[in-house]
Amino acid sequence: MESNGPASTGAAELIGSALERELSDRIEELAGIDERCAGLGERIRAFVEGGGKRMRPLFALAAYEGCAGKADRAGAVGRSDDTGTDGAAGSEGASGTAEAPVARASAARAVAALELIQACALIHDDIIDSSATRRGVSTVHVALAEWHRDNTLAGDSADYGRNQAILLGDIALAWADDMFSGALLDSPGIDVATLRLAHAAWSGMRTEVLGGQMLDVHAEATGARDLDTPAKVNRYKTAAYTIERPVHIGALLAGADEATIASLREFGVAIGLAFQLVDDLLGVFGDPAVTGKPSGDDLREGKRTVLINRALETAPPAEAAELEGLLGRELSPAEFERARAILRDCGAVAHVEAEIERLTADGTAALDAADLAPGGRAELGALAARAVKRTF
Amino acid sequence: MESNGPASTGAAELIGSALERELSDRIEELAGIDERCAGLGERIRAFVEGGGKRMRPLFALAAYEGCAGKADRAGAVGRSDDTGTDGAAGSEGASGTAEAPVARASAARAVAALELIQACALIHDDIIDSSATRRGVSTVHVALAEWHRDNTLAGDSADYGRNQAILLGDIALAWADDMFSGALLDSPGIDVATLRLAHAAWSGMRTEVLGGQMLDVHAEATGARDLDTPAKVNRYKTAAYTIERPVHIGALLAGADEATIASLREFGVAIGLAFQLVDDLLGVFGDPAVTGKPSGDDLREGKRTVLINRALETAPPAEAAELEGLLGRELSPAEFERARAILRDCGAVAHVEAEIERLTADGTAALDAADLAPGGRAELGALAARAVKRTF
Repeated sequence: MESNGPASTGAAELIGSALERELSDRIEELAGIDERCAGLGERIRAFVEGGGKRMRPLFALAAYEGCAGKADRAGAVGRSDDTGTDGAAGSEGASGTAEAPVARASAARAVAALELIQACALIHDDIIDSSATRRGVSTVHVALAEWHRDNTLAGDSADYGRNQAILLGDIALAWADDMFSGALLDSPGIDVATLRLAHAAWSGMRTEVLGGQMLDVHAEATGARDLDTPAKVNRYKTAAYTIERPVHIGALLAGADEATIASLREFGVAIGLAFQLVDDLLGVFGDPAVTGKPSGDDLREGKRTVLINRALETAPPAEAAELEGLLGRELSPAEFERARAILRDCGAVAHVEAEIERLTADGTAALDAADLAPGGRAELGALAARAVKRTF
Repeated sequence: MESNGPASTGAAELIGSALERELSDRIEELAGIDERCAGLGERIRAFVEGGGKRMRPLFALAAYEGCAGKADRAGAVGRSDDTGTDGAAGSEGASGTAEAPVARASAARAVAALELIQACALIHDDIIDSSATRRGVSTVHVALAEWHRDNTLAGDSADYGRNQAILLGDIALAWADDMFSGALLDSPGIDVATLRLAHAAWSGMRTEVLGGQMLDVHAEATGARDLDTPAKVNRYKTAAYTIERPVHIGALLAGADEATIASLREFGVAIGLAFQLVDDLLGVFGDPAVTGKPSGDDLREGKRTVLINRALETAPPAEAAELEGLLGRELSPAEFERARAILRDCGAVAHVEAEIERLTADGTAALDAADLAPGGRAELGALAARAVKRTF
């Protein structure tokens, strides 16, 4: 409910219009090459504008608001030891307080670029998972294969769809960088020290999400049964990418100090991990009408989640072996119920629920410890509540 | 021969060591996530260090040397109307001449990032083209599938190889941006105006190469017979990406003026197009022992090259129809010879040869017109000669 308040609405609108402008410009650039390229680019626009709740940019912008609203940033990270190439001198306010090094509209545009990373991630993930639908419509590679088939073109339709979707994901990833760098470079009075900090966080985030995703694919293939592997996948593929790095970037663009950034990242890691554990539970116990995914998808895919690996470790050997045999294949309704019962009976479900509670409390405490303006703090709390309730 | 001279050797070494350092750092970052991620990242290192002639960074660095070696850059693009955030004032030399806005080592590191774009392009292209080998060894997706099979892991081996190779291409693309931005931001005294110019050119290059590649995949599926389509693919997928934008970026990093940049880009477009037309000829008439690709690959793949589309347009209708029937499938030796004969008899081969000659002359004239230091000019000429002779 808080998320429908004016602060959030303004943020979502800023993010939405930044994406709209960016995609128009880039598709126009493609049209300058050829109209057929622009037609393909339109699929990215439809994908980005057709769904997604802007979770990552909203977290980032709320962190920005929370930090930019604070008066004293004397200890702002890294900007004091600048090489003298920045224009910070001109941006000092009257009473010893500094404006944020990146203007609000530029910050919104910069963090909206996270949605283009997400477009790449989802378009490529749908190829990787062989997913046919997303948000109730055909995935990008399937829609392109359908177009190829409908027009009886040369070659294999599925190959065509996959190939163009690989390239569309690539261009979305390139555009994300263009949008992020472009927004920062266009921000009035931007300085090189802020650019360095922002790029380091942005760079870390991309290696983390892709590294986490590679580890996930690896773990599924090797059937990794340890608890460390899914914990790492959750830490890098989800928590870092979804909340920790977005709030880190938002805080840097506002010129936050190190202590505030550390608290915000701690908040982001905890809420991000809780968000993923809720997803693990929904992947087995969720209502398909609510989750939009078939029930038990995680079992069928043989995903190595914390929930499942916890059960493999703690269930009696016979039941653990039985559960292992139920992973990575189609299940009958009775088998599916049996898998659920094993997960519950061994205490894995209760363990994950307790973890979610602990992480949520940790995240809330870290948020409380951060020195933030009240509006940004309230918005971050509201976003965290939505994340953990999976109303995102 | 000139390309073995000291200037070229120095450039290749600078580029090579920049890539070595960057990949070590990034793989170490992956190791911080998990050793299994680092193991996957090693495949990018092996790919980049195992081959490739550094054509793009060499062109870029030669343009940099040619422009940085010139004394007077009073009319340097865009830097005069800066918003006051740059540090240009500090970089003026004693006699009214300016140092290059980006130091040589930083420029080498920035343009070496082109090799990581190339790694992404080739790893993803090999999936798109279902290529099993490159440079005499298994392609990345095939090597990963073999690893999966050798270790009898869960799931389909080919899917596993494709999935990890998609992610490795993605991370190479992300790292390319990190390396480019990182090199510029680390360059002593870098100013925001130079960063803006460099990012605009870098951004344009990525949209062009991916747009050109999407158009190529589209044209192959639709069997486009016009001459405009392959000309555009050559312009964006090859010429812009391989030479025009590299020399553009190199010149910007050296602070070149608009006229010099315009001449260098004209040179790049002409030589880049010639480079591609030579490839078109080799794709049908080349010796597999020299090209490393099976003879007649372009015919088998149904590629819509200038050579082939010119023949479809100019050959007598019966022969054009016959040629069309020989595209996009396996050919017997007799059919292959017949296709070659049609291409020769209708004058398409002679036309393409004349085009190569004209473009090479145009490129040479544009290079002559550019105001460059002698060393850089000689190096660009030597690189162009290698490109057109396909000794790259």
